[in-house]
Amino acid sequence: MFEIDFKFCEPFRLESGADLLSLDLRCSIYGQLNHEKSNAVLVFHALTGSSRITEWWSEMLGVGKALDTEKFAFVCVNALGSCYGSTDAKNIKSVVTTRDIVRSQEMLLEYLGIKKFRAVCGGSLGGMLALQFAADFPDKTEKCVAIGAAPLSAMGLALNHLQRAAIKHENGVGLARQIAMISYKSKDIFDANFARQPNRNGENPFAKLEDRFDIAGYLDYQGEKFVERFGVESYNVLSKAMDLFDLTDAEIQKITAKISLVGISSDWLFPATDVRDLAERMKSQGVNTDYIEMNSTDGHDAFLSDTAQMSKILREIFATNRHEQARKVSNYFS
Amino acid sequence: MFEIDFKFCEPFRLESGADLLSLDLRCSIYGQLNHEKSNAVLVFHALTGSSRITEWWSEMLGVGKALDTEKFAFVCVNALGSCYGSTDAKNIKSVVTTRDIVRSQEMLLEYLGIKKFRAVCGGSLGGMLALQFAADFPDKTEKCVAIGAAPLSAMGLALNHLQRAAIKHENGVGLARQIAMISYKSKDIFDANFARQPNRNGENPFAKLEDRFDIAGYLDYQGEKFVERFGVESYNVLSKAMDLFDLTDAEIQKITAKISLVGISSDWLFPATDVRDLAERMKSQGVNTDYIEMNSTDGHDAFLSDTAQMSKILREIFATNRHEQARKVSNYFS
Repeated sequence: MFEIDFKFCEPFRLESGADLLSLDLRCSIYGQLNHEKSNAVLVFHALTGSSRITEWWSEMLGVGKALDTEKFAFVCVNALGSCYGSTDAKNIKSVVTTRDIVRSQEMLLEYLGIKKFRAVCGGSLGGMLALQFAADFPDKTEKCVAIGAAPLSAMGLALNHLQRAAIKHENGVGLARQIAMISYKSKDIFDANFARQPNRNGENPFAKLEDRFDIAGYLDYQGEKFVERFGVESYNVLSKAMDLFDLTDAEIQKITAKISLVGISSDWLFPATDVRDLAERMKSQGVNTDYIEMNSTDGHDAFLSDTAQMSKILREIFATNRHEQARKVSNYFS
Repeated sequence: MFEIDFKFCEPFRLESGADLLSLDLRCSIYGQLNHEKSNAVLVFHALTGSSRITEWWSEMLGVGKALDTEKFAFVCVNALGSCYGSTDAKNIKSVVTTRDIVRSQEMLLEYLGIKKFRAVCGGSLGGMLALQFAADFPDKTEKCVAIGAAPLSAMGLALNHLQRAAIKHENGVGLARQIAMISYKSKDIFDANFARQPNRNGENPFAKLEDRFDIAGYLDYQGEKFVERFGVESYNVLSKAMDLFDLTDAEIQKITAKISLVGISSDWLFPATDVRDLAERMKSQGVNTDYIEMNSTDGHDAFLSDTAQMSKILREIFATNRHEQARKVSNYFS
């Protein structure tokens, strides 16, 4: 892996009309770009991820893995507005859109010498960005893989709103993360991991008002951990970018890449029905679209946590020809 | 309707061991108690309700309605810990349980001259209280109707925890209410009412970070309204009582009343599967239990909002003999 910090010292105009005076982009590359630069895959991270794919998809990326670094070079850029090396939302006083984010990343292609990606790929916000890239730069990718991503429904908008409402309170970002966690997980996985057990540190919810059940202790811990690692401005700006993602029919019609939409059966934030509806809509607009459903009880997080299924689905999508696909499929079951 | 404020000027010991020096209970009665006091139905309100049934179930209660004031006298008592006339949680420095609440209400029976209720009935926390009453005072009710109620799963505990976590922030009770609202409603009803529309006051979420979608404007409004009408201590204590509700097998075995459990198909806070599981468990413990599913897209709130279906279900349950039931059923479809 190697990392590059790009600094563009010229104004970057956002869709909102606001100008950034310069633009920083941190880029991580895994695997070897071939001489023709024809083996690159662009991966987009989710809301609070970084350009370091192995920080959040370590089971997916590596030699012989679903994202096989022996075959492809995987490029990931920290999203504009994030706090992991690119221009931080702290320094942006404006709405940022998924269009802004993919356009900023497209500017890197020239510097990397890449004319076209083999695929663009991501989950959640990353899936939105993959679709936005396929729509805005149709001649720059062959495939597009979007997992657990669709325009947010009113319930999804509500969940993001609650998180930003929490952030308005002093030290509210931990609470925002807790709200996010319930939208990323599922009833089944909470039942399996926590049920109605008292907090494992020995608290007794029956004895004291402030004593917690185990699920509450878990959520508090997740909130506290998060405060140390993520910026509130980045959270506000990127969750807002998720809210705004909503391809028009005209945009969809421009897409030429082969699209793979992956819905997660237990996803509450991006219900599988919404992902399937988007697939149907794209097909009806003439786009070559596959819908694949990941049957997992993990909720939205399944694209990160259910590595066995996610691997299998990505391997099948990344198998580039029939022969290879047949060989790979036989491998899974042998 | 008439209202009575009871004041018991002697200590009331809570399950936690704490003593209240005195106990206030506000009681509303609709319809006429007959001479034998044999036509009373005890209704329990939900988390933020009051003893005034018509404030939250006006479509359900009245002459000729599902809760027919020509046939029955409906008694409702503001729950211990609430802020609508009974001893307020402000003055209770302890956990309060559903057992405490039903025991405090049972103390009124003597004063009202009621030996046995025809039924106890409620939704959400009110359903938990109905079940707790049927278990703790098996000879004091013939029937028990609990709608959208079961021991909270880990996801339900998580949602209640987030609300209390919000309340810890200054002016956080509005945010708590917003979190509650998403747990009371459903994706479908939010899609139908708000979809991805910008806030109806003219805000443009694409233009400004702080401008909202319509669902966010709605939630903010709900939060603001709530601040004026409910106390944070009551919220903490009663939501905690919900968390703790969890009948043991030994308690269930004591029940002699005919139980009707109503699950709501789109309920996320008390999933219909959890209500059905509780019904199965009660049956397996020898309790005469019916499970009825309300097929509604309204979410947990359906017991308040889907008045047509709720009426139909309550009418069938309250029909006291076969003849009457047959007549009533034919009425619905004529």
